[in-house]
Amino acid sequence: MYDRLKGFKDFYPDEMAARREVVDTTEEVARRYGFREIATPALEDVGMYVDKSGEGIVDELYNFTDKGGREVALTPELTPTVARMVVAKQQALSKPIKWFSTRPFWRYEQVQQGRFREFYQTNVDIFGSAEPEADAEILAFAADTLSELGLPASEFEFRVSHRDILGELLRSFDEDVDVQEAIRAVDKSEKVDRAEYLGLLADAGLSIEDAEAFDDLLAAGNEDLDALLAEVDRPTLTDAVENLQAVLSAAEDFGVREHCRVSLRTARGLDYYTGVVFECFDTEDRVSRAIFGGGRYDDLIESFGGQPTPAVGVAPGVMNSTLPLLLQEAGVFPEEAVSTDYYVLTVGDTREVAARIARELRAAGNVVETDVSDRSFGAQMGYADSINAETVVIVGEQDLANDEVTVKEMESGDQTTAPVGEFPGDREQPRYEDFA
Amino acid sequence: MYDRLKGFKDFYPDEMAARREVVDTTEEVARRYGFREIATPALEDVGMYVDKSGEGIVDELYNFTDKGGREVALTPELTPTVARMVVAKQQALSKPIKWFSTRPFWRYEQVQQGRFREFYQTNVDIFGSAEPEADAEILAFAADTLSELGLPASEFEFRVSHRDILGELLRSFDEDVDVQEAIRAVDKSEKVDRAEYLGLLADAGLSIEDAEAFDDLLAAGNEDLDALLAEVDRPTLTDAVENLQAVLSAAEDFGVREHCRVSLRTARGLDYYTGVVFECFDTEDRVSRAIFGGGRYDDLIESFGGQPTPAVGVAPGVMNSTLPLLLQEAGVFPEEAVSTDYYVLTVGDTREVAARIARELRAAGNVVETDVSDRSFGAQMGYADSINAETVVIVGEQDLANDEVTVKEMESGDQTTAPVGEFPGDREQPRYEDFA
Repeated sequence: MYDRLKGFKDFYPDEMAARREVVDTTEEVARRYGFREIATPALEDVGMYVDKSGEGIVDELYNFTDKGGREVALTPELTPTVARMVVAKQQALSKPIKWFSTRPFWRYEQVQQGRFREFYQTNVDIFGSAEPEADAEILAFAADTLSELGLPASEFEFRVSHRDILGELLRSFDEDVDVQEAIRAVDKSEKVDRAEYLGLLADAGLSIEDAEAFDDLLAAGNEDLDALLAEVDRPTLTDAVENLQAVLSAAEDFGVREHCRVSLRTARGLDYYTGVVFECFDTEDRVSRAIFGGGRYDDLIESFGGQPTPAVGVAPGVMNSTLPLLLQEAGVFPEEAVSTDYYVLTVGDTREVAARIARELRAAGNVVETDVSDRSFGAQMGYADSINAETVVIVGEQDLANDEVTVKEMESGDQTTAPVGEFPGDREQPRYEDFA
Repeated sequence: MYDRLKGFKDFYPDEMAARREVVDTTEEVARRYGFREIATPALEDVGMYVDKSGEGIVDELYNFTDKGGREVALTPELTPTVARMVVAKQQALSKPIKWFSTRPFWRYEQVQQGRFREFYQTNVDIFGSAEPEADAEILAFAADTLSELGLPASEFEFRVSHRDILGELLRSFDEDVDVQEAIRAVDKSEKVDRAEYLGLLADAGLSIEDAEAFDDLLAAGNEDLDALLAEVDRPTLTDAVENLQAVLSAAEDFGVREHCRVSLRTARGLDYYTGVVFECFDTEDRVSRAIFGGGRYDDLIESFGGQPTPAVGVAPGVMNSTLPLLLQEAGVFPEEAVSTDYYVLTVGDTREVAARIARELRAAGNVVETDVSDRSFGAQMGYADSINAETVVIVGEQDLANDEVTVKEMESGDQTTAPVGEFPGDREQPRYEDFA
């Protein structure tokens, strides 16, 4: 007997049925917004990650040398791959480029509740627009997805921030501050205690006094972005605040403003983010971690050797991540059960007729099983029950002698006979009540 | 600029749109047969493959040592993984277990036309039935899938063989023949010249004379299985022939007999197959290799430490394998193009109304794009054309002053105005002709 690897998950049919609904809903909303599906490799040149994020990233990768001597890694995220794909066909692709895909990613991390080494995301990105409408469309897609998944509007919020507001506020205290390191400190602000947070800001080059004053500014900005501009007069800060306000204005028109709250302490961990960033949270606090996040990464395509191409995206986790956990907590996760329209049961030598009925019911789009195990009436009935068959069609030798089959409604147990020549006949979904 | 790894493929939206149709059709047919979707890890313990197939298999694997010291491999096929999953929940799962899934697999092989190192399959398996109906249902699923994909009935056939017929015929010449090696030779019989084929049989322990006589028996058996029994009298051979005939009889009832041809030289390469095996071929010979294959593997679950559990399955390649190639050659591959129901075009400060229209059209299930790039009328119109928009809704400041929008049918170029308050109104898909 072999074991599954630690941090990996097998999805059996009941679990998968529910997750398929979540993925289908997420993808359906993406399609309605005009995002187009792509598919991408599971392996990439490890340099793609190291060059962007430093050798440190290798600790979190499943990387190895392949049989051709290539240094490769299982993709830990999609963004570098789509950036590579945009660069490879930059001239041929009409802008904006709007892509989505659902697939697994892999990170060698500590396994904990709700965090797997193999996890699944639906990545949704827009390339080629620096306009606030692009940011707002990503937010609107995310809100529509959560609503379609059944989450009440009051139970989620997007905490929206802006990398350039953070950067400019930091520089207003000290032009030499390590902005990336300080932003990583802000990203941790909700996860560590205040002393540690201020210490991390100090490590990035702020004095403890400046760190406290900086954090006070973030809190003040959450209340009133214009007040921030009155406090700190820097042109780039003004631009950033105006950009964030323009995104919120577009979000208003796109019907998603009610879900957005300015939250400057929301920073996102990855270095490549540039403008607006956001994280989705459960307002009921049943799940304390971010549900998912996203934001702008306007410089990444150029750093991959492409034409300057602004970009913004979001990546809801599906299957085994925080989002299904939230849906479960909120009581809107789909039922973990398979469903079956018909079980066609054979008694005696009736395979030919049973097969004809199964074939016709399938041709009308129904989910239909029939006996492939040569089993008794009772065993077949038990199996039909185990697969939640709605209707059992009993094709018995005696009934057939009368040119009849028996139609049994499983929930009520009611049954009646139907002429075999009329089953299913023209009916797409013949049921007990059609013949009772 | 980074390069994609050799043997891997990026699927851009046009290519993906066609492949999504193929995958959806294949999965839809599987669902109608009552196969249930599962999802499985991309990495497994390398021992799972080595123990079954010997160290030689490692040459074809993407294998490595992970950061926890585990010897792991990217899954080269699904069968060992589903066998592991069946064993892990053997008691809880009601039989027959009928599973499907679509995902990539990885083999470090020579890259050639239509053969990638990352390739995609829809695996479809039945566990827990040794009856011929299970084999026939797998064949019927495969035939229905090809038919639903648009392939004419006369353009494909299943070459059906039986491992025990091959094994017993081999043993009738020499009880000490290496049956597995000889079967691998038979599997290569169509790919190498006759002298090499006979040489491979000789390597497995047959004399050249016996090898020729054995191959003559295969040819005779293709014509008349009963004649084979008259020629060679072995009880296990009789059982195997009767089993193959029973599968063909069930295939008759299941509507797939017309696609089946007895072809004893069809052997399949993998060692774990036991009973009926088959390969699908293009009868027009536009694609000379097998399109896909499958068969019985009744001993695998037990060899994985489970209760004895017969099994049979098939795995059509999708995305970048032989099947899409055949569909292309046959002229039934879906169009490689994205489709769009509406582009909502803004002229001037009309974002709020345009967004409302886009939102309502999306809520009715349409694919709708609108401007996220603050572009000119002409640029937007060019983009709408590039995404094959069927209808463009022009929301202009002047039209809005008259409470109107313009509805333009892109194919004809015809356009008319519609009252803004009635667009879309109650209509799910308002078109030019509704207002002209």
